[in-house]
Amino acid sequence: MRDGTPHFFARMQSQRHLLGLQGMHPSQIVPILDLAESYALLNRSRKTQRDVLRGLTLINLFFEDSTRTRTSFELAGKRLGADVINMSVSTSSVNKGETLLDTAATLNAMRTDLLVVRHAQSGAPALLSQKVDAAVINAGDGMHEHPTQALLDALTIRRHFGHLDGLTVAICGDVAHSRVARSNIHLLTAMGAEVRVVAPPTLLPGAINQLGVQVFHHMAGGLADAHVVMMLRLQRERMSAGLVPSAREYFRFFGLDAERLALARPDALVMHPGPMNRGVEIDSPVADDARHSVIAEQVEMGVAVRMAVLDLLSRRRNET
Amino acid sequence: MRDGTPHFFARMQSQRHLLGLQGMHPSQIVPILDLAESYALLNRSRKTQRDVLRGLTLINLFFEDSTRTRTSFELAGKRLGADVINMSVSTSSVNKGETLLDTAATLNAMRTDLLVVRHAQSGAPALLSQKVDAAVINAGDGMHEHPTQALLDALTIRRHFGHLDGLTVAICGDVAHSRVARSNIHLLTAMGAEVRVVAPPTLLPGAINQLGVQVFHHMAGGLADAHVVMMLRLQRERMSAGLVPSAREYFRFFGLDAERLALARPDALVMHPGPMNRGVEIDSPVADDARHSVIAEQVEMGVAVRMAVLDLLSRRRNET
Amino acid sequence: MRDGTPHFFARMQSQRHLLGLQGMHPSQIVPILDLAESYALLNRSRKTQRDVLRGLTLINLFFEDSTRTRTSFELAGKRLGADVINMSVSTSSVNKGETLLDTAATLNAMRTDLLVVRHAQSGAPALLSQKVDAAVINAGDGMHEHPTQALLDALTIRRHFGHLDGLTVAICGDVAHSRVARSNIHLLTAMGAEVRVVAPPTLLPGAINQLGVQVFHHMAGGLADAHVVMMLRLQRERMSAGLVPSAREYFRFFGLDAERLALARPDALVMHPGPMNRGVEIDSPVADDARHSVIAEQVEMGVAVRMAVLDLLSRRRNET
Repeated sequence: MRDGTPHFFARMQSQRHLLGLQGMHPSQIVPILDLAESYALLNRSRKTQRDVLRGLTLINLFFEDSTRTRTSFELAGKRLGADVINMSVSTSSVNKGETLLDTAATLNAMRTDLLVVRHAQSGAPALLSQKVDAAVINAGDGMHEHPTQALLDALTIRRHFGHLDGLTVAICGDVAHSRVARSNIHLLTAMGAEVRVVAPPTLLPGAINQLGVQVFHHMAGGLADAHVVMMLRLQRERMSAGLVPSAREYFRFFGLDAERLALARPDALVMHPGPMNRGVEIDSPVADDARHSVIAEQVEMGVAVRMAVLDLLSRRRNET
Repeated sequence: MRDGTPHFFARMQSQRHLLGLQGMHPSQIVPILDLAESYALLNRSRKTQRDVLRGLTLINLFFEDSTRTRTSFELAGKRLGADVINMSVSTSSVNKGETLLDTAATLNAMRTDLLVVRHAQSGAPALLSQKVDAAVINAGDGMHEHPTQALLDALTIRRHFGHLDGLTVAICGDVAHSRVARSNIHLLTAMGAEVRVVAPPTLLPGAINQLGVQVFHHMAGGLADAHVVMMLRLQRERMSAGLVPSAREYFRFFGLDAERLALARPDALVMHPGPMNRGVEIDSPVADDARHSVIAEQVEMGVAVRMAVLDLLSRRRNET
Repeated sequence: MRDGTPHFFARMQSQRHLLGLQGMHPSQIVPILDLAESYALLNRSRKTQRDVLRGLTLINLFFEDSTRTRTSFELAGKRLGADVINMSVSTSSVNKGETLLDTAATLNAMRTDLLVVRHAQSGAPALLSQKVDAAVINAGDGMHEHPTQALLDALTIRRHFGHLDGLTVAICGDVAHSRVARSNIHLLTAMGAEVRVVAPPTLLPGAINQLGVQVFHHMAGGLADAHVVMMLRLQRERMSAGLVPSAREYFRFFGLDAERLALARPDALVMHPGPMNRGVEIDSPVADDARHSVIAEQVEMGVAVRMAVLDLLSRRRNET
C-alpha cells in the first residue's frame, strides 16, 4: 500500500492532522476512501500489513468512553503494526485548558506518532494538534465533528451506489447535538450529494441554513425518493432536557419503520452510527433488514477507513 | 504444535465453539489436555509460538469484571501471536438481548476470529455464538459453565495422578451458584471420575440428582478417602441473601482445615479456582501447604489450557 | 545494547529487583543512567529494540491509578518487545496482606518475568518481591520510594550539567508525603549532590535530619544559588487535612514564580514530577519557560530510564 497516489500527497502536505471534514475537497477525500477500500479487502482475507506502522506509537486518548470507536482504532493500529496504548482519562480529574496542554507536552515527550483523541469539548483535538508533534485524529469532539465516522459512511455508500455525487441522503434525528451529522453534511455536500436533514425544530442547530442542506420537519417529505436514510442515535439525556417528549412519542414521529422506509427508493440504504436505541429512533425489523440495512458494513468499513487514515498521516510524517 | 491429533479433528468438526463441557466425550477432552500439557512445557522454558495465531484477532469481551481470567486469556493469546483487544462492558448500560446481538454484529464486522466472553447471564455466550463468525470461548456465564476452568482443573489433577478415571473428587461449598462446579462435574464424570458434592442443602442446585454425583451434607463423609478436595469460593452476597448464616459459621461446618483434610487420602490434592476467601471456605495453612495445595499450579495450567483451546479452535476455523 | 557494563553486573548480582534507591552505590546508579541515555537516543530516532525483551511477560500491576506512569512503563516494555499486560486492581476489593500474597502466587504461576507495581502502602512491592519469581520494579509505594522517578530526574539533570556531584538541588514542597522526594534524596546524596529541602514544618517528615539534607523553611534561602529547583506536587487532600491553609496561601509562601526562581543560578533547571497544579506549587510562566523548565524532558527520560531498568533486570534474570 506504499505506492502511488501522488495527487493526494500534493493536497495532504498542508494536512498533518484529521480534525474535521469541513472545507475538505474531493481530491482529499477520494484517496482516503480508495485506500480504505483496499484495506477492507485485506481485512477480509486476513492479510495484515505490519510494516506500515511498525515502530510507531499510537495513543488512543479518550476523555469520553467509547468502546466501539476505541476498539476500531486499536484494531486498525495493531493490524498495521503500531504499538497501541490506550489512555482513558476521566474529564472530572482534568482542569480544562491548561492541563490539556500539559497532557500534550507529556505525549510529545513520550514520542507519540499518532494520537487519536475523543473529547467532550468541541475543539479539544484541534487545540492538542497545535501542541503535539504527533498526527492528531479527531475521534469525536463535543458537537463538532467525527470525521472517520463520515468517511466510513461515505465508503459504505460508495460501495453500494458506485459514487456519491447526485445521491439524496436523508439524515434523520438529533442533528443539533450530532457530530456525526455535521461531519457527514460536510463530506457529502463536498462530494456532490444532496443532503436533507429531518428533525423537529428542537433538534436542529441554529445555523442549519448555512450548511447547504434541505430541512424537513416530517419524515414523509424527508425520506421521499432518498437513496440513503441515515438515522442518528437519540441520547437519552435529550428527553430529560425536555427537547423530546418521550421515547414513544419520538419514535411515532421520527423513528424509522418499514412503512416510512417504503417512501425512500426501493434500493435505499439504512444506516446508523451505532449503538442503536431500537424502538426509539429505529425499529428492529428495519435495522435487521438485509435488503436495506448496511449498519454492520459501516462498522467493517470503520476499521478500514481508520487504517487508511493512520497510514496516510504516518506517511506524511515520514516525508517531512 | 501444528501436527497430528487427527482423531480429535474428526470430533471437533461439529464443535466450532467452546461453550460448555456438558455432553463432551473423552475423545474431545483428552486432546485439549494433551496439547495444553505441551504448552505448559513451552511456557516454563519461555518459548513462545507466535505463528500459531499470527494475524488473528482475539477479543476479550467481559461483561463481568475478572482480572485473573481476562489476564490468563490475554497472555494465552499474546504468547500465540494474536492481536488481543480487551472490551470491558458494564452490563448496566446494556439493554439485554437485542443489544447483545448488536454487539455480535459489531464484532463480526470488525473481523473477530476468537471471542472470549464472560457474562452474568447463563447462555449469553451461546447466544452470541449463533450470531458471530468468530469461535466463541465461554469464560464463565452466570451459573451455567466455565469450561476452561474445568479443563485446567482436570489437567492439574492428571499431572499428579496420571489419569482421571477412578479418582474420587469432592467438590465442596456453594455448588448451587457455581459454574466452576457445574463444568467440573460434566468433565470429571465424562472422564470416569467419581464426583461428590459437599454442601448444605441451601447451596445445592435443585437438579443435583440428575448430574451423576454423590451428595454429602457433611465434610467428614464427603472427604473420606478423596483423591481431590476442590473448594469453591463463597460469594459474600450469599450471606446477605440468607443462604449462609455467617462466614464464621460457614467455615466451622464447610471450611477446609488440616483436620478435615486428614480425612482425605494422604496424597490428596487441595484445589481452589481463586480468588480465595481465606478463613471462609479455606484455612490459610491448608491453602499454603505445599504437600497438598496445587492452587498455583491451577493458575499455571490455566494459561496453557487457554492456549490449547485457542489453538485448536483457530485450526478448525482455518480448515473450514 | 547487550554488550558490556561488566562492573555493573558484579554489583547487580545481589539486586534482583528495583525496590528503592536507599543505600545504592554510584556504581549501581551510573550504568542505569548510561544505558537510559542510549535508549533516549534510540527513541528519538524511532529505532526499536524488540529483541531485548522478546518472549518476556511484563505485568503492570497498579493498585493506584496513574495513567502517566503506567503508560511510560507500557511504552518502555513494548518498545523492547515484551508482552505487556495491564492489571488494575482497586484496593477496595483487596483484603490486605494475605490477598497480596495470593496475587503473587498467581503472577508466578502465569510466568511473569517483569512485574511493575504501584501500591498505596509503603513496602507492598518489597513484600511481593519476596514471593514472586519476577523482577519487581517499584513504580511508587505509599510514602516510601519511586525509584524510576528519581533515576529519570537524575538523568535529566546530568544531561544538562554533565555530572551530579557538587550540584545544589532544592526539593520544594510536600516532602513529608512524597516518595519522589525520598528517592531523589537517596540518589542525589549518593551521587555527591548537595540536597536541600524547602518546606513548612508541617510538610517535613520527622526523620528529615537523618537524611543528610539541609532544611529550609523559606524559599528565599533554599533556592539561593541552586542548580536545580525541583517542585513537588501538592496533593489537594493535604489542605482538607489542615496541613496547608489554602492553595492561595501555599502558593504565596512555597510556590515557584519567576521572582523566586531568579534567586537560583541563572542556568538553574526547573523540574516537576507531574502532573502539575499550576498556580498552587508552580506558576504557569515558570513551568513553560523554555530556558529553565525541563519538565517535558523528564517525561521523555522516564521512558528511557524504564527501558534501561527493564533491560538490566531482565539480563540478570537470564544469567542466573
